[in-house]
Amino acid sequence: MKLHILGCYAATPRTLTNPTSQVLEIRNHLFLIDCGEGTQVQLRKHKIKFSRISHIFISHLHGDHFFGLPGLISTFQLLGREKELHIYGPKGIKEVINLLLKVGNSWTGFELLFHELESKESQLVYQDSKVKVSTIPLDHRIYTNGFLFQENPLERTLNVEAVRNYGIDKAYFKMIKKGNDVTLDNGKRISNKLLSLDPPSPKRYAYCSDTAYYPEAIKHFQGADVLYHESTFLESEAHLARKTKHATAKEAATIAKAAAVKQLLLGHFSTRYKGLHAFESEAKTIFPHVLLADDGKVFEF
Amino acid sequence: MKLHILGCYAATPRTLTNPTSQVLEIRNHLFLIDCGEGTQVQLRKHKIKFSRISHIFISHLHGDHFFGLPGLISTFQLLGREKELHIYGPKGIKEVINLLLKVGNSWTGFELLFHELESKESQLVYQDSKVKVSTIPLDHRIYTNGFLFQENPLERTLNVEAVRNYGIDKAYFKMIKKGNDVTLDNGKRISNKLLSLDPPSPKRYAYCSDTAYYPEAIKHFQGADVLYHESTFLESEAHLARKTKHATAKEAATIAKAAAVKQLLLGHFSTRYKGLHAFESEAKTIFPHVLLADDGKVFEF
Repeated sequence: MKLHILGCYAATPRTLTNPTSQVLEIRNHLFLIDCGEGTQVQLRKHKIKFSRISHIFISHLHGDHFFGLPGLISTFQLLGREKELHIYGPKGIKEVINLLLKVGNSWTGFELLFHELESKESQLVYQDSKVKVSTIPLDHRIYTNGFLFQENPLERTLNVEAVRNYGIDKAYFKMIKKGNDVTLDNGKRISNKLLSLDPPSPKRYAYCSDTAYYPEAIKHFQGADVLYHESTFLESEAHLARKTKHATAKEAATIAKAAAVKQLLLGHFSTRYKGLHAFESEAKTIFPHVLLADDGKVFEF
Repeated sequence: MKLHILGCYAATPRTLTNPTSQVLEIRNHLFLIDCGEGTQVQLRKHKIKFSRISHIFISHLHGDHFFGLPGLISTFQLLGREKELHIYGPKGIKEVINLLLKVGNSWTGFELLFHELESKESQLVYQDSKVKVSTIPLDHRIYTNGFLFQENPLERTLNVEAVRNYGIDKAYFKMIKKGNDVTLDNGKRISNKLLSLDPPSPKRYAYCSDTAYYPEAIKHFQGADVLYHESTFLESEAHLARKTKHATAKEAATIAKAAAVKQLLLGHFSTRYKGLHAFESEAKTIFPHVLLADDGKVFEF
C-alpha cells in the first residue's frame, strides 16, 4: 500500500504548498482522494499516470478539496480518455460538474459516473475482489465524509516445500490456498497449517479530512493500519479549530489512540505555521506513532 | 502600460506552463484578463497584490480560461476582502460561481458583481475618468469576447519655462492644460502650443483569445498599440486550427497587419510544439513587429 501526498495544506494554494489531494495505490488500484486546485499539475510532477485513475473520492465541496476536479476532467478528455470515470462525493457534485461541462460545451467522450453521497451513516461505496471502500461520516461545516480503504484478505500462500514433501497433487493447490485441509488417498488428513503460509494481513487506510474532533467516527476505523487525520491547527489555536470545525494535532492524536491505529499521519496544515515540527511533537504527547504528511512525500505501509 | 503574462499556453496546465491569464496595469488599475487553473499561484509568484484586483474579464467559459476563478474568489474571501469584485464574462458565469459558493456554503463577505455578456456586437463594459474597456466579439467554438482596453487622453502638460517667460499667472494653468490659448491683459493672444506640451498619447491594448482567423474583429482595434492575438497553431497544423476554431501564427500576423497595430504579441500556444521560435518566424513573414508571450514575462508598452 503506497500513499502519494500531492497536497496537504489547508485553504489556499500557494507557491510551494498545495491544497488537499492524495493518491492511494492499493492492490493495483490508483484511488485519487480529494482534488484541490492544481492537482493535475501535481499528478504530472509526481509522474502518476492519469489513465490509471478511474475512481475519485471527494470528501466535501469546499474549494480546497475539489476545485481541481473540473480541470482534471477536461484534461482526461484532452488526453483522449475512453474509460469511464467514477466520482464519489457529496450530493451536488454532479450538478456542479455538469453545469461546467454545459457552459463550456465540453461534454466528455468518456462516461462520467457520479456516486452522490448524502447519508449520515457509513456506506459501502466501492467493492471488487481486491478492495472495498466505505465512507466515514465526519463533522465539518458542510456535509463531509472520510473514506476507509480496505484490502480484502488474500488467499493463503502455498508452502511449496511442504506440499512437495507430502507428495500432494497439483489438483489440491486451489483448495489449500483457500484454507482447507487435505485428505490423502490413504485416508490421512493433513492440516492446512502444515501446507500453507499466512498471507500478508489485509491493510486498512482511513482518510479523515476535514473534521472537528469527532470520536463518533472512531468505530469505523478501529485498529486501522494508517489513519490520515486532519490537524489544521495546534492546541494554541484550539479556539479557531472549534470555530471552523477543524481539529488540532492533539485531538488527531487522541482519536488515533482511542482507535488504536498502527500509525497516525497528520495533514491539512494551516499555512499560518512556520514548519511542521510542532504538529508532530504536540501529537506525540498523546500517541507515539506519528508521521507528518508533506507535499510530494510518498509513504509505503 | 504594463502587461504581466501569468499563463499563455492552451488547453491544460503542466508542470512548467500555465493556461491563460494576464494582468494589465493601466493608469493605476490592475485588470485581470482570464483566469485559468493556477492563476492565484501565478499571482503570488509574480508578487501581484490580490487586493489591487477589482475587475476580472473572462473571454469565454472553457476551463483553461476560467477554472482558476472559483479558487481565486475563495482566496479573496480568506484574505478578508471587503471591496466589491466585478466579473465580466459570458452569460452563465454567474450561475456557475453561485452554484459553487452554494454547495460549499462559502458565500463571500464582499460583493460579487457580475456583468454578464451575450451581445454579438461590441459593448462598452467599463468606463471611468482614466480608462474604458469594450468587448471585441470573436469567433470560437463557444461565445467568446476579446477586450479592448483604452486609456482616456491625458491633459496637456504645462511648459513650465515658457509659462514663466511669458509671465503667465497660475490662474491660467488649468485652461492651458485643457488646450486653450491665453489672452494677456495687454490683449496679446498666446497660442496654447507655445505654452504646453503634448501629453503621452493614450494607449490601446487589444486582447483576442480564443478565436479563429476573424477579420470582422479588426475594426475594433485598428491602430492599437498592442494586439495580443492567439496563435494556438503553426500553419503546418492549419487543419487543426480550422477544426477547433483557433488561429495560426500566420493568421494572427495577417490580422495585425490589416489592423496596422504597432505591436503583435503572440500567445495561447499549443503545448505540442517544442519551443516558440517557429511562431515568431512564421508571423514575421507577414508582419515585422512580433513579440512572443511566455509565462512570467512582463512587457512595458
